[in-house]
Amino acid sequence: MRKICVVVGSRANYSSIKSVMTAVKKHPKLKLQLVVGASALLDRYGAVVQTMEEDGFVPDATVHMLVEGETPLTMAKSTGLGLLELATVFDRLKPDIVVTVGDRFETLATAIAATYMNIPLAHTMGGEVSGTIDESIRHAVTKLAHLHFPANEDAAKRIIRMGENPKTVHMVGCPRMDIVDEIAKKYRDTTDKSFLKKEGVGGSVDFTKPFLLIMQHPVTTEFGDGEQQIRETLTVVETLKMPTIMLWPNADAGSEDIARGMRKFREKHEHGYIRFYKNLPLHTFIPLMMHTACMIGNSSAAIREGSFLGTPAVNIGTRQTGREHGKNVLNCGYHSTDILKAVKAQLKHGRYSANPLYGNGDAGRKIAAILSVCPLSVQKRIQY
Amino acid sequence: MRKICVVVGSRANYSSIKSVMTAVKKHPKLKLQLVVGASALLDRYGAVVQTMEEDGFVPDATVHMLVEGETPLTMAKSTGLGLLELATVFDRLKPDIVVTVGDRFETLATAIAATYMNIPLAHTMGGEVSGTIDESIRHAVTKLAHLHFPANEDAAKRIIRMGENPKTVHMVGCPRMDIVDEIAKKYRDTTDKSFLKKEGVGGSVDFTKPFLLIMQHPVTTEFGDGEQQIRETLTVVETLKMPTIMLWPNADAGSEDIARGMRKFREKHEHGYIRFYKNLPLHTFIPLMMHTACMIGNSSAAIREGSFLGTPAVNIGTRQTGREHGKNVLNCGYHSTDILKAVKAQLKHGRYSANPLYGNGDAGRKIAAILSVCPLSVQKRIQY
Amino acid sequence: MRKICVVVGSRANYSSIKSVMTAVKKHPKLKLQLVVGASALLDRYGAVVQTMEEDGFVPDATVHMLVEGETPLTMAKSTGLGLLELATVFDRLKPDIVVTVGDRFETLATAIAATYMNIPLAHTMGGEVSGTIDESIRHAVTKLAHLHFPANEDAAKRIIRMGENPKTVHMVGCPRMDIVDEIAKKYRDTTDKSFLKKEGVGGSVDFTKPFLLIMQHPVTTEFGDGEQQIRETLTVVETLKMPTIMLWPNADAGSEDIARGMRKFREKHEHGYIRFYKNLPLHTFIPLMMHTACMIGNSSAAIREGSFLGTPAVNIGTRQTGREHGKNVLNCGYHSTDILKAVKAQLKHGRYSANPLYGNGDAGRKIAAILSVCPLSVQKRIQY
Amino acid sequence: MRKICVVVGSRANYSSIKSVMTAVKKHPKLKLQLVVGASALLDRYGAVVQTMEEDGFVPDATVHMLVEGETPLTMAKSTGLGLLELATVFDRLKPDIVVTVGDRFETLATAIAATYMNIPLAHTMGGEVSGTIDESIRHAVTKLAHLHFPANEDAAKRIIRMGENPKTVHMVGCPRMDIVDEIAKKYRDTTDKSFLKKEGVGGSVDFTKPFLLIMQHPVTTEFGDGEQQIRETLTVVETLKMPTIMLWPNADAGSEDIARGMRKFREKHEHGYIRFYKNLPLHTFIPLMMHTACMIGNSSAAIREGSFLGTPAVNIGTRQTGREHGKNVLNCGYHSTDILKAVKAQLKHGRYSANPLYGNGDAGRKIAAILSVCPLSVQKRIQY
Repeated sequence: MRKICVVVGSRANYSSIKSVMTAVKKHPKLKLQLVVGASALLDRYGAVVQTMEEDGFVPDATVHMLVEGETPLTMAKSTGLGLLELATVFDRLKPDIVVTVGDRFETLATAIAATYMNIPLAHTMGGEVSGTIDESIRHAVTKLAHLHFPANEDAAKRIIRMGENPKTVHMVGCPRMDIVDEIAKKYRDTTDKSFLKKEGVGGSVDFTKPFLLIMQHPVTTEFGDGEQQIRETLTVVETLKMPTIMLWPNADAGSEDIARGMRKFREKHEHGYIRFYKNLPLHTFIPLMMHTACMIGNSSAAIREGSFLGTPAVNIGTRQTGREHGKNVLNCGYHSTDILKAVKAQLKHGRYSANPLYGNGDAGRKIAAILSVCPLSVQKRIQY
Repeated sequence: MRKICVVVGSRANYSSIKSVMTAVKKHPKLKLQLVVGASALLDRYGAVVQTMEEDGFVPDATVHMLVEGETPLTMAKSTGLGLLELATVFDRLKPDIVVTVGDRFETLATAIAATYMNIPLAHTMGGEVSGTIDESIRHAVTKLAHLHFPANEDAAKRIIRMGENPKTVHMVGCPRMDIVDEIAKKYRDTTDKSFLKKEGVGGSVDFTKPFLLIMQHPVTTEFGDGEQQIRETLTVVETLKMPTIMLWPNADAGSEDIARGMRKFREKHEHGYIRFYKNLPLHTFIPLMMHTACMIGNSSAAIREGSFLGTPAVNIGTRQTGREHGKNVLNCGYHSTDILKAVKAQLKHGRYSANPLYGNGDAGRKIAAILSVCPLSVQKRIQY
Repeated sequence: MRKICVVVGSRANYSSIKSVMTAVKKHPKLKLQLVVGASALLDRYGAVVQTMEEDGFVPDATVHMLVEGETPLTMAKSTGLGLLELATVFDRLKPDIVVTVGDRFETLATAIAATYMNIPLAHTMGGEVSGTIDESIRHAVTKLAHLHFPANEDAAKRIIRMGENPKTVHMVGCPRMDIVDEIAKKYRDTTDKSFLKKEGVGGSVDFTKPFLLIMQHPVTTEFGDGEQQIRETLTVVETLKMPTIMLWPNADAGSEDIARGMRKFREKHEHGYIRFYKNLPLHTFIPLMMHTACMIGNSSAAIREGSFLGTPAVNIGTRQTGREHGKNVLNCGYHSTDILKAVKAQLKHGRYSANPLYGNGDAGRKIAAILSVCPLSVQKRIQY
Repeated sequence: MRKICVVVGSRANYSSIKSVMTAVKKHPKLKLQLVVGASALLDRYGAVVQTMEEDGFVPDATVHMLVEGETPLTMAKSTGLGLLELATVFDRLKPDIVVTVGDRFETLATAIAATYMNIPLAHTMGGEVSGTIDESIRHAVTKLAHLHFPANEDAAKRIIRMGENPKTVHMVGCPRMDIVDEIAKKYRDTTDKSFLKKEGVGGSVDFTKPFLLIMQHPVTTEFGDGEQQIRETLTVVETLKMPTIMLWPNADAGSEDIARGMRKFREKHEHGYIRFYKNLPLHTFIPLMMHTACMIGNSSAAIREGSFLGTPAVNIGTRQTGREHGKNVLNCGYHSTDILKAVKAQLKHGRYSANPLYGNGDAGRKIAAILSVCPLSVQKRIQY
């Protein structure tokens, strides 16, 4: 029995790795070890750990690692604290493989702890290009990882060009699409949309009319600009006055700026048409993406899930620059006039047809199968 | 005036960056900020910080970051603690560029702190291949760095193949050779070798006879094997019974194993012909390399300084695998018979002619010149 | 010139030490060093550091030390992180005396860092009894401190009974009263209350009518009960429907519970008569205390400032148990019927006459004078 | 079953709590949880954790917490790191009572972590007077602890005078004496002393002749004086040239100074009559105390075990000032002439008769019995 230790640090990471966790748990030759940390533990970010427990995943360890402040300084410190804590956890759990997701600071902390402790490291969602510090982190983790599970072909090729051994690079699609697929099948034919009304704070959105879905995160390399950036987006919202769903940002350097902009907007006006959500469970979020008239912001969901679901989307600014996307995405700058123009084009176009760019729904099972048989070694050497 | 913050964490790193520090300090458009941390602060490792102060470099910050234990666990923790501390230091010093050296855990901590804090990062000695965890760390730091100063052509090409922008890659040679060159010129014609006798503990080595120079560090991916590895080397020493200079290992996971092996050897026998050193100042170490009959162990000095000085060397095991070397180096396995065979071949051959593979003595000035004019940006994107 | 290093970690601590800071800054033989940390740096808690800078105090160091979570676990971790960070700061600033305030986790971290680093420690507001973990922390700090500045006679006697040298115990009154006195003089004759209307979120409170002032913090030894406790208080608010000012709780284990209770209350009802504040500057808070019909909650302000100002107050639960108070305070249990009864009694009674129990407005100057001449020694011995 | 979590951080603490651990392990209503940390894990300090495992105690958690440096700065940092780590451990083990020993930095870290996490804290060896920072730490821990197990009457009275509830103060004697008693009984009639010869490094001591036993630790409030202090002691050793057993110092701020003094002494001379030990198991150490002609230094063992065993002892300097001792101890200053005079007096006097000042051998059982039935509460209030 190989012990596979998955580290989950945020709501986004959970949905990106959930199908792997399920497949590992079910696999006869694998034993799942679950470590939950960072914002996934916090009430302020929707306490994803509770959702996980409701889904049947009991953490083997919980790791508080966020140093308050949400500045570049505290982000570096949170990585350091995470490293201190995760080393303790790995020393206790003694996993055969550690699995880390994406490009967040807890991803990097996980990668370094595992690498120094001579534990083989598997990395999902590597090799992608995005044009912020997240890209540097993602590639650094690739150079530390012993097994790679990129989400698309483009990313797989990039990992190999970076000098990784092709035998360790397995293009399996994005495990997030497994979940998206499952939920999409369930809600494809639902006509009753009342389940969309629960949760959130603010106005009472009418889901029978076309509605907007907004998700805008801070750009860490543009620290300090967040409040202005979200204000531009909110100007568009105010102009359109369509029913609007808006999510609070991720815990990152700068998220406080975005949140402040949102709070000021909320406090200044009485907006009956806009509703705010801390964290949406995927079974609410995916139906929203299936039915929204236009998704707005800089979340990778618009690109990844969006291509799979055919969601019209407007991607703002630099956060996703270079990430391979389908026709469903229109890119634009931060200014409200640019955003407004792009949104209007999408509202005119309507929904797109599906595109399996980021997988077709079986990534979790493929990854578990590979983890159960792949050779394990901590010796690595660049291929050139 | 650009503020250039150099972080030094070990005796080896100091000699690898000293000529850069000197050139930065002298440059009219640059201001040197010096951060000293990790083993460079500790008595047990020769308190390199004192040497630095004697050389006229006053630290702007000192950073205790080593968690005791010297196991893989504590190495991960030391990286985490270093990250917590260095973030504080950078927040206070507000450098324009941070300079980090090589591939140690403090190198990685420095790189992450600077990167998350949106400070441009320059990296020296990147792109080399060595076949241990150090290689992974080195390449991960490359993926985080904004400016690259590789020590040889081979390394420069590798950095570019990894996707770094060629405009940010400057092949300048190894700054360590600047110092080596300076010292070598001074001692080339010295006939009086009495200065070699000071310091150290143990037997009284006769430097008029051919002598061995041993420097063997732990291999972090072979944690637990260190005591056996050094025992094999010491078997060769005991067989040859030549005058021998032996250095204590670096502070790394496993160094306690090497040290234990050395202590046991020392305590078991009365060896009049062997002398132990904690830390040798370069002006002692380089003359030793100029005069030794054979250097033995797994230090990169045998490869880098060795090629420059023409020192006959036996490189043991995997620690330097893949690193470009000159003819002066013979590689062998850990077993005493392999080592003995290689040493005898080198004793027979004698000294080699010089080879400028790792630079020709002006790397420090070149780096300072580039740092004073290069464009500064924290935006990075892979080139493919 | 003695360097006096004051560490401030929260809004409450700032107003408790501000007059000392002013007096130290003005004193010819003293030099103020200011360290700001913990919640005093955070937007979520009103970024007190900005207020300090507006008041002319520039921090010599800022120290992020809060580990997110606000549970007992993260409170312990925040103390640990604070200790790591404050040790670095003291090593750099090399103060002659460190001054720490009260009984918070940053107080303890400050005390330990100073004590281990052989820096004389002065402690204000020691010796008081309060019946929660804060009391234990406060007394532990007393056993570490070398100089004591208790706020009232009762506390001074207790410190001496604990075995401290009477020569090191200086009863000076509470420095917080210095500020209160200053502000009270300014607003005593003000008829225009429009300044009270600025800031805050929620209903528009009519300050010409009798209004309530609520300030209820979590009780760390009753962790988990916070939401229920605040619900009882809010039931009283809803019954009375008087104009109400309500403050968000301190950053402590359990404050998230209180905040959740408050958010739920706010989201459930449309309460035109209640207004929420993150942080009130003293020049707003003190006039509120001067004019409120009744202060409700468990803040020490009701006892300390309340006695000085003659504010009718209802003190709920165990948080202040044992603290010496004047006639202006009625104690009651957590249940809404108990609270309601006490509030009604206070509304009937009206304001009380002033009582100098916690000082008469010159504590800051007294403390500075003592700090400038007192003998400094880190040698301590219990007196029996 | 109450879960009793004992935290052990050094060789000295292990022998001070071992009989409690044994009694808890055997008690039908108690379950032992063992946490081993700090120097107890390190090779350099004799890896006490191995001894513990040989004794049948398997750690439930190991906690690396020593930041390298052994300066006041790193001591504060080690406390902070310990606090971060121990909080994680307690969160996982969820003990009903935490037991902490004495007055070391890990004692304080343990006390704070437990207190903030609302876990009842039991403290052994509180209430004693010693005249260094250890005394402040010890009393601060008393103010945090909920249960007190002082080692003698004098200490018990002091704890009560400090305001602790007498019902929580249990004078049981020192658990260390339980072990001493056991070993003393075993070796009382042994004539063969060959077991004393094993281990250690240096000369071959003749145990049939009168021999000295030296144990001198750094005095943290006299940081920087350690090398000079040990030099004075070693001058006496050199004058007497008697067979001598010498132990390396504890891991504390300043121990590197003591160690350096010892290393210089060892390296300068060829001393056939002196032998150095890293760590002596109690079954070697106690017989040495039973047979030594005179014990020299500043260890509390001379006072505690010394009174029980009747060992002639010379106590140097301030480290034990104020600790209650029997007639077997002569106090003196740091100067070699003072020390020599006192040693000669003891050599003349010979052994003393036993004195049960610090217990009579049943403290462990008494403590376990109390832990199994005592009321548990984290509510504390000073008694005056």
